[in-house]
Amino acid sequence: MIVKPHGGTLINRILSEKEREAILSYRKQFFTLEINEEKAIEVQNIATGVFSPLQGFLNQEDYHEILLRNRLASGHAWTIPIVLDVDRPTAAKMKKDDTIILSCGGSPVASMRIEDIFAWDFAEYAQNTFGTTDERHPGVKKLKTYGEYFVGGTVNFLSEPISRYPQYYLTPRETRILFAEKQWNTVVGFQTRNVPHLGHEYVQKSALSLVDGLFINPVIGEKKNGDFRDEVILDSYKALLDHYYRKENSVMSILQTEMRYAGPKEAIFHAIVRKNFGCSHFIIGRDHAGVGSYYHPFAAQKIFDLFPDLGITPIFFMSFFFCKTCNSIANDKTCPHPADAHVDYAGKIIRDKLIRGEIPPEIMMRKEVSEEILKHPHPFVGDD
Amino acid sequence: MIVKPHGGTLINRILSEKEREAILSYRKQFFTLEINEEKAIEVQNIATGVFSPLQGFLNQEDYHEILLRNRLASGHAWTIPIVLDVDRPTAAKMKKDDTIILSCGGSPVASMRIEDIFAWDFAEYAQNTFGTTDERHPGVKKLKTYGEYFVGGTVNFLSEPISRYPQYYLTPRETRILFAEKQWNTVVGFQTRNVPHLGHEYVQKSALSLVDGLFINPVIGEKKNGDFRDEVILDSYKALLDHYYRKENSVMSILQTEMRYAGPKEAIFHAIVRKNFGCSHFIIGRDHAGVGSYYHPFAAQKIFDLFPDLGITPIFFMSFFFCKTCNSIANDKTCPHPADAHVDYAGKIIRDKLIRGEIPPEIMMRKEVSEEILKHPHPFVGDD
Repeated sequence: MIVKPHGGTLINRILSEKEREAILSYRKQFFTLEINEEKAIEVQNIATGVFSPLQGFLNQEDYHEILLRNRLASGHAWTIPIVLDVDRPTAAKMKKDDTIILSCGGSPVASMRIEDIFAWDFAEYAQNTFGTTDERHPGVKKLKTYGEYFVGGTVNFLSEPISRYPQYYLTPRETRILFAEKQWNTVVGFQTRNVPHLGHEYVQKSALSLVDGLFINPVIGEKKNGDFRDEVILDSYKALLDHYYRKENSVMSILQTEMRYAGPKEAIFHAIVRKNFGCSHFIIGRDHAGVGSYYHPFAAQKIFDLFPDLGITPIFFMSFFFCKTCNSIANDKTCPHPADAHVDYAGKIIRDKLIRGEIPPEIMMRKEVSEEILKHPHPFVGDD
Repeated sequence: MIVKPHGGTLINRILSEKEREAILSYRKQFFTLEINEEKAIEVQNIATGVFSPLQGFLNQEDYHEILLRNRLASGHAWTIPIVLDVDRPTAAKMKKDDTIILSCGGSPVASMRIEDIFAWDFAEYAQNTFGTTDERHPGVKKLKTYGEYFVGGTVNFLSEPISRYPQYYLTPRETRILFAEKQWNTVVGFQTRNVPHLGHEYVQKSALSLVDGLFINPVIGEKKNGDFRDEVILDSYKALLDHYYRKENSVMSILQTEMRYAGPKEAIFHAIVRKNFGCSHFIIGRDHAGVGSYYHPFAAQKIFDLFPDLGITPIFFMSFFFCKTCNSIANDKTCPHPADAHVDYAGKIIRDKLIRGEIPPEIMMRKEVSEEILKHPHPFVGDD
């Protein structure tokens, strides 16, 4: 049996074609709110159940419960606000119980029934989500650009789910069908925003050895400068999967959502999302979803103690390295040898090699992966 | 929290010194039954809780429930009869509710209150436990030597727990104290009756990466000709642990019990015993506790489906090998490459090398382990 979605029910808020037609024919009567592509993708995540049990953007009660208790008002664990922000003049044009149309680039995305419109406090949001109000933190910095009101309410999707990478896009309903077809009961999810080195492969295969299937689920969406570009991550993972993984027990599809860099809070959020995709287990490494030195390297593991009811089992890995005495990849639980026997999988060494157009050592990265990355003239965000 | 013992309570049937004195002073009034060392060790296992929730040798009801339903009359899973056999003349000397003394080599081992004395059927026992009545099967062959009656009843241990290898002997009460001291909540047990090659290390370390501690628990006791001698297993594991494992998360102690070679039934029994030692997880490899080709290689994994209430999580490994393309140890879930890229960890190749006094390739066995084995002039049972 595949794990149940968070909250027990996989949310589906995609309207049928007839419903869609009916609403769009009344479109002129509704206030239309233009949203950016990133928000439109969050609407799609809500509608396709990626964010189950959310059925829309957070209302005031859920929003405050999350910040205060890391839970929805229903009691289900939730750690990252999924909110629709508007500025003051726009807020003034809407009221409770209105139905509005969310539109992106002039195309209708969803209808939304407004539950409430409420002012929010920057410091409260930032401190409780990111653990800091420091505006050099990329998540905090972005929060600074938000409008001063949040609009809460359920959404109904007026489109078909779309993706810039349709060959790698599956909704939770589709991943669950796929896992069932493959007769996977236990599935370990792996989050990534990086190209794969041998340490990642080691972690994934260690976990896969204990479950039925591996679900590699890169985060595709807005990232900070210096992160690998989405297509580089996908192409490099495809090379790895083609050459070093078994098709019958390894699947890759994408998670379209922005990185928040909220560390431990985002680790819980990432686990919940993977549970919705059908994962029974989720890998949490060192400094998951972290940035700079804002979080303790193991804070994103420790936080799981607060959520015994999460319904997805975290698998924790600490550091891993090549040990010359073990003559294999090892981690700090399996290897007793001193640090001078270790070769670290430092992302920086690999990155510096790649920037110079060189193939990193094969002890660090598969040749097929390196070659794929080097086919891209600009592998990093902001380097063109 | 360390996992609860099977049945909920760790059985302790070791009498206090005063109780012991009192019973021994009445010894002449009790019928004394001489048992062999192997049976005396089973009494010790019962008394120290290794076989919790058993409090003595099986009575007729529990015995039949096990053969028919793989459970005790209480409903708890149990798959291997723990019985005290006697011949007809001896049976005639005892009756229900008698207290008898079990003695080994002239020394009292335990008092036993007889619940029942019952005839048993060879074919029923053999077929339900070993899946065969073929007397070439070592477990069946041994069964053929049993007396025609079983004596059921609770035992009270009249001695201190002993071992031929005291430096490696811990009772379940002691392992649980040790695990608690080490702050292990999750512990994976590894059963072995072999010297360790790199495949074993790979399996153990893969599992250890996901839990707090590793409990290597070799079976020490009567084995068939050609198996490694107990002291060779212990010395070789000590070499491996000293050189390649971390002391703070790896412990070895022994399980003193005979191998039954009952394959899947014995796999469940082995898991229950490790649960009693405090293991939350237990590794089941290919053909666990099997012999010859009596069992399907994965029967000992499949059988766990019948015991969702077992209270210890099995971790299944299939075959593992060195893959020249992966350039690492791999298993049949993690490696997609064809068989000609694989070097098998065939016990036979290693054994043939060792018989000729040669060091097996380091790709198969750690040099420190090989050297330790070769220090023993007669490493195999029956080769002297």
